[in-house]
Amino acid sequence: MHSETVLLEGHIIDSLTLSKVLDTILLLGGTYEIHRFHIGATMDQASQAEIIVQADSDERLENILHQIGQHGANRKTQEAVFAPAPADGVFPEGFYVTTNLETSIRHQGRWIPIDNIEMDCGITLRRHEGEIVAETVPLHKVRQGQPVVVGDLGVRIAPVERRKTESAFRFMGSETSSERSKARMISAIAEEMRRVRADGKKILFVGGPAIVHTGAGRYLEAMIRSGWLDILFAGNALATHDIENALYGTSLGVEIATGTHSVHGHENHLRAINTIKSRGGICQAVESGILTCGIMHACIQHQVDFVLAGSIRDDGPLPEVITDTLKAQDAMRERVKQVGIAIMVATTLHSVATGNLLPAAVATICVDSDADTVVKLLDRGSHQTWGLVTDCEYFLKELVACLNGDAR
Amino acid sequence: MHSETVLLEGHIIDSLTLSKVLDTILLLGGTYEIHRFHIGATMDQASQAEIIVQADSDERLENILHQIGQHGANRKTQEAVFAPAPADGVFPEGFYVTTNLETSIRHQGRWIPIDNIEMDCGITLRRHEGEIVAETVPLHKVRQGQPVVVGDLGVRIAPVERRKTESAFRFMGSETSSERSKARMISAIAEEMRRVRADGKKILFVGGPAIVHTGAGRYLEAMIRSGWLDILFAGNALATHDIENALYGTSLGVEIATGTHSVHGHENHLRAINTIKSRGGICQAVESGILTCGIMHACIQHQVDFVLAGSIRDDGPLPEVITDTLKAQDAMRERVKQVGIAIMVATTLHSVATGNLLPAAVATICVDSDADTVVKLLDRGSHQTWGLVTDCEYFLKELVACLNGDAR
Amino acid sequence: MHSETVLLEGHIIDSLTLSKVLDTILLLGGTYEIHRFHIGATMDQASQAEIIVQADSDERLENILHQIGQHGANRKTQEAVFAPAPADGVFPEGFYVTTNLETSIRHQGRWIPIDNIEMDCGITLRRHEGEIVAETVPLHKVRQGQPVVVGDLGVRIAPVERRKTESAFRFMGSETSSERSKARMISAIAEEMRRVRADGKKILFVGGPAIVHTGAGRYLEAMIRSGWLDILFAGNALATHDIENALYGTSLGVEIATGTHSVHGHENHLRAINTIKSRGGICQAVESGILTCGIMHACIQHQVDFVLAGSIRDDGPLPEVITDTLKAQDAMRERVKQVGIAIMVATTLHSVATGNLLPAAVATICVDSDADTVVKLLDRGSHQTWGLVTDCEYFLKELVACLNGDAR
Amino acid sequence: MHSETVLLEGHIIDSLTLSKVLDTILLLGGTYEIHRFHIGATMDQASQAEIIVQADSDERLENILHQIGQHGANRKTQEAVFAPAPADGVFPEGFYVTTNLETSIRHQGRWIPIDNIEMDCGITLRRHEGEIVAETVPLHKVRQGQPVVVGDLGVRIAPVERRKTESAFRFMGSETSSERSKARMISAIAEEMRRVRADGKKILFVGGPAIVHTGAGRYLEAMIRSGWLDILFAGNALATHDIENALYGTSLGVEIATGTHSVHGHENHLRAINTIKSRGGICQAVESGILTCGIMHACIQHQVDFVLAGSIRDDGPLPEVITDTLKAQDAMRERVKQVGIAIMVATTLHSVATGNLLPAAVATICVDSDADTVVKLLDRGSHQTWGLVTDCEYFLKELVACLNGDAR
Repeated sequence: MHSETVLLEGHIIDSLTLSKVLDTILLLGGTYEIHRFHIGATMDQASQAEIIVQADSDERLENILHQIGQHGANRKTQEAVFAPAPADGVFPEGFYVTTNLETSIRHQGRWIPIDNIEMDCGITLRRHEGEIVAETVPLHKVRQGQPVVVGDLGVRIAPVERRKTESAFRFMGSETSSERSKARMISAIAEEMRRVRADGKKILFVGGPAIVHTGAGRYLEAMIRSGWLDILFAGNALATHDIENALYGTSLGVEIATGTHSVHGHENHLRAINTIKSRGGICQAVESGILTCGIMHACIQHQVDFVLAGSIRDDGPLPEVITDTLKAQDAMRERVKQVGIAIMVATTLHSVATGNLLPAAVATICVDSDADTVVKLLDRGSHQTWGLVTDCEYFLKELVACLNGDAR
Repeated sequence: MHSETVLLEGHIIDSLTLSKVLDTILLLGGTYEIHRFHIGATMDQASQAEIIVQADSDERLENILHQIGQHGANRKTQEAVFAPAPADGVFPEGFYVTTNLETSIRHQGRWIPIDNIEMDCGITLRRHEGEIVAETVPLHKVRQGQPVVVGDLGVRIAPVERRKTESAFRFMGSETSSERSKARMISAIAEEMRRVRADGKKILFVGGPAIVHTGAGRYLEAMIRSGWLDILFAGNALATHDIENALYGTSLGVEIATGTHSVHGHENHLRAINTIKSRGGICQAVESGILTCGIMHACIQHQVDFVLAGSIRDDGPLPEVITDTLKAQDAMRERVKQVGIAIMVATTLHSVATGNLLPAAVATICVDSDADTVVKLLDRGSHQTWGLVTDCEYFLKELVACLNGDAR
Repeated sequence: MHSETVLLEGHIIDSLTLSKVLDTILLLGGTYEIHRFHIGATMDQASQAEIIVQADSDERLENILHQIGQHGANRKTQEAVFAPAPADGVFPEGFYVTTNLETSIRHQGRWIPIDNIEMDCGITLRRHEGEIVAETVPLHKVRQGQPVVVGDLGVRIAPVERRKTESAFRFMGSETSSERSKARMISAIAEEMRRVRADGKKILFVGGPAIVHTGAGRYLEAMIRSGWLDILFAGNALATHDIENALYGTSLGVEIATGTHSVHGHENHLRAINTIKSRGGICQAVESGILTCGIMHACIQHQVDFVLAGSIRDDGPLPEVITDTLKAQDAMRERVKQVGIAIMVATTLHSVATGNLLPAAVATICVDSDADTVVKLLDRGSHQTWGLVTDCEYFLKELVACLNGDAR
Repeated sequence: MHSETVLLEGHIIDSLTLSKVLDTILLLGGTYEIHRFHIGATMDQASQAEIIVQADSDERLENILHQIGQHGANRKTQEAVFAPAPADGVFPEGFYVTTNLETSIRHQGRWIPIDNIEMDCGITLRRHEGEIVAETVPLHKVRQGQPVVVGDLGVRIAPVERRKTESAFRFMGSETSSERSKARMISAIAEEMRRVRADGKKILFVGGPAIVHTGAGRYLEAMIRSGWLDILFAGNALATHDIENALYGTSLGVEIATGTHSVHGHENHLRAINTIKSRGGICQAVESGILTCGIMHACIQHQVDFVLAGSIRDDGPLPEVITDTLKAQDAMRERVKQVGIAIMVATTLHSVATGNLLPAAVATICVDSDADTVVKLLDRGSHQTWGLVTDCEYFLKELVACLNGDAR
């Protein structure tokens, strides 16, 4: 029988962490003995458990240790092991794959925290102003010879904390049920946005084109004009629908104000792109006085930092759209660092892409009228992700009202 | 080759009726010749077509004539044929099955319109104040010996009219897309409700329990208190959740005002029922001052005529619930006669049951947060049915605002 | 500060029970101290915890004790308290509301288990062959003067066990994801059905009309004819569609074999009902040789015990349909006692109604093509409930193949 | 009053075209008179209508003429008008926007058909082997000075034909209902694939990663190995999941064969990409004997022409993935020219992108387990698009069985 002792500490009972660790051991075919267990006598005290993990082969044991390590059950301290990347864009054999949880590595006798934690990356070292810093590196950016962590040794993950009691979201539970009062949840989101701002962090909005279709663009525009957004992630479709609406009052040919099909309907979409291309870009169209309102106009006037990422379903696209998906991803990656809350509305593609880049600790709100989409997004989520199954029109209208303090 | 000539008249081109008739003939294996065709030269004039239908057997021909008869392609005038019901609750062989479209029968040389048209019934005759009237009879109510129409002869259906241009819903199209502005559609519904009232017809509301769960009960209550509803169809669940909320401030144990789980949570549901049963009923609970607010309280105070229909998933149920489904159906059947608009929110069971009873000409609105449900309801619908995929909370909040004239 | 000590024992860590109890205490505004804690050193040993619960008021404390009692954190032994029902169909003030978990009450110094545990009932005593037995009683069946448990004292609930390791479902997780291999899950269900049979328990099938629409009726029929079902719960629609198919080869007028619309289409539905009514019932129609195949025919030939429960959307209905919902519920209640597995396919109404009646320990499978429906059913479920989002056609075809041992 | 006469001919009644044209005129605020109408006396003969369209302004009239032109109601013959593109990637003011219907332009006294018709493009002229050919050009490919059609004059669209009677899909209707027999529909698709092959056209498959997750990859692989696919459109995810499965037996860490979570689970995804990148690509990995089975392996062995298009949610990506979305679109555009049937399974992004490129006449099948997705795809579709709401596992298993002639 092969065995190894691991330590687990923190609020490991009420956060379900201990249960998950024991369950994982059993699920992967191992057994355990709890060697030492000190439970926090009151709810403020942390608990500690020392668990002996056993398995019938060394390989199985390694696998179990690896998995429970991802819940924060860490082996005795050892130094992290590095190997050089064998080529550009290739990690060394056995590279450590990051999670989106708070992570540190042991190097030269001390724990170095990873600043820009992101899931599904490697960990590398870099010298910065005479200091050694550890950071994540996505596969396409690693360069030949760069040191990359291999194996689990010397990698420490902080167990997920229970959701903070004081959080505005406390009552929201983890359910995605469409059968709950949305007004209350939206009010909590507004409150959280205020808190994020007070903490000096940024508010990221990720949006899909249905926001404009449904006539809800004006609420998003209002949020921008009242200074509530710092960063916008979207695609060619949202920007084009918005500009089509600004230029012709339609979205895919439907008049937003009256809901009727416009003459020359559907084509306005392509004409809007052509008009912006003929001026050189959205910014130039604003400057030249062609584009005088709408979401994109508001972004430019209020210095909201936007990334328009390309997709294969795009018409055009607009000049600002980054058609190379790796470059678009890097542009998004760069901007998520200071984000304190991410609000993702009516887009699966951009929401999943953004979720991939965010640390687990960032509060994330997913809004979609289709329950399946919300469930899919939450599946990838952490304890700090909430879903609302509702219209983006209702969500944004109510959110603007809450932010302006005049919720009905 | 067997053939027969049918007549079709009305706005048969722009209502798609002619296309459907010709398509049906081909689909059922027949062929046609258009014998005479007079198309209305302008859009105000009706068109007439005389179509020779051909088939290779008499049986096939009969089938085709029967099917296209349901679109209003009627055979030359003949008297309706009757046969006596062989037993209580049993129609005679070959009985005519009604649609929900405007229908008349030919009897003793004149056309008698069916007053209470309802789909999937038989047609019978009754003597009323010396007059012979024709009316639908559901299967369970037919009595032995009662005359029932058999076959298609002498039954005439008016082709469906195109949707009226002046209708508030004109722009809504037939789509159920969740990607449209709901605010505009809801405003059109409020307008239609005003029109129905001006016409002296009644407003029917059909609602499910999610209305209370989501905190939207107060909007329904407000609609009742401002006199906007005449009839309410619901089940034990809506009434119980509403009363639970009125008595304890919870719905299935969730505090509506704060969204948090209440102590004694889930049980409040059963306690609410028990409390009302101990008083003898909702009405008595209102009178005795136990029940002082909520939807059911408003119904009793404002003489809204309600039917609570039982289902096998009910707890309790409340004394007012009609547990026999045939009796509940008859109670609903009785009340739909004067209805000018039916608004059905967040309930598949009661919406389908109500839809079964309504004539095709009654404007019907189906609201549900699940697109599948709305599509299912519309599948059974007519040209006067519209679906909204949205939260009931948003729908009702906005509708009340529109009815009160203060829509944002 | 008010406080009370509770005991919790069993596999309380890996079943998450301890975590849930501590979380509930905090959520309801209490605090705790863990007085004594003995953790099972190996995974086979049970753990015990003695927890001191504190709250700032006696009422709050009672509430917490009540809630955590539902997870199996029980107070020191006290006798259960009874009060007489004040009237027929009315429980006494403060009655204990049952869960669907294994429950016992303390009476005259010993623990009496509740045999027919069912959620949302009261608990009463009955003398049976000289013995006192404790049993649940639904609200509508309680009679004036009958003793009913009030309050929590002397009521003990067994904490939920972790899912059994040997279970065929072990790997299925609790997810409802549509993105998993169904073939594997269906094979596990077949295995579980075999196990249930070997244990001498019964197999319950709950089905909706889409089974017939989609052409999957033949698979259900095959299961019955190979003796795999003991009990069938359905409504008028499933039986009528099945009989329509048996008599005319259509379901709601669509020819099952070819998928084309039949002449006289939709009416076949009503004609089928009329034909059965004219014979007096399904059983008579089988005997008289009118009905010669289909699901209902198979049920009668193979002595499958069926309950057809009425609903307000029924046409007809068929003579066997129990139109009174309370009587239908009682008929279902009677039959669930020996059930070892419940397979619920394509029906929300009957699935929820059945789920309300089943003990938590019965393995329950919910199958629907709409993810929302499955999620809704699972929300009410226990650790022994699994959901599959898939076609009933695929599910039944594959299940029959697995039961017959020829799965591809 | 401004007016103009248009001609409409073909099977304009049973294809609903006439109804749509008249409806559009009214919807856009015009009126009409039917000047001359010749209805095909039998179903084989085409009908002709000459319609006088009237409107109160010239602008409105132009709009109406433009819209009904898209249904094939064409003005009297005039030459197409051209203007030069003002810059690279910019169309001239008032450019004609293409539909996906069969289109010709009038140039130098004769009608020139557009070969590569595609919606939302411009029309340009090119000299090819001494001949003038007309073709579509997407916005990003137009070059300064290139002639582009402006306005509607001289552009002729063939009205949509009714679905061909002989088509295997005839019975399928346009519904997307999940309540129909899938077995029959899938059998019809197999039949259509045989027909497409017999016609010398190509079969395109568009697939999402759920195909691999659900264990259905082996059916797709089998289709490729039996030579049923010519072209595959997919993304990085499908290819990576397939390769992960080939290398490690897992998909996102779930063991496909047993359904259990694998050790090192989720990371296998990234390791699979890294392994392929270290070899230089999928093709090299096949050649070097690293990759020995799976969908991608089958594509390379059987010369299936695949396009892997990048998206911002990609990890890695694999070397074969085209990360620039415009280049990926062009690669897809190039390949759709010979396609006779497109089968799109479990992917919204790639299905919509492909749908944008296909002519309306190509038979298109959309399969997804989420009804919303299928409805969304069909909304963009033509008369030759069908949707199936079902599991991709069931769909592919059944399709392979049908193609191999051993459908149960």
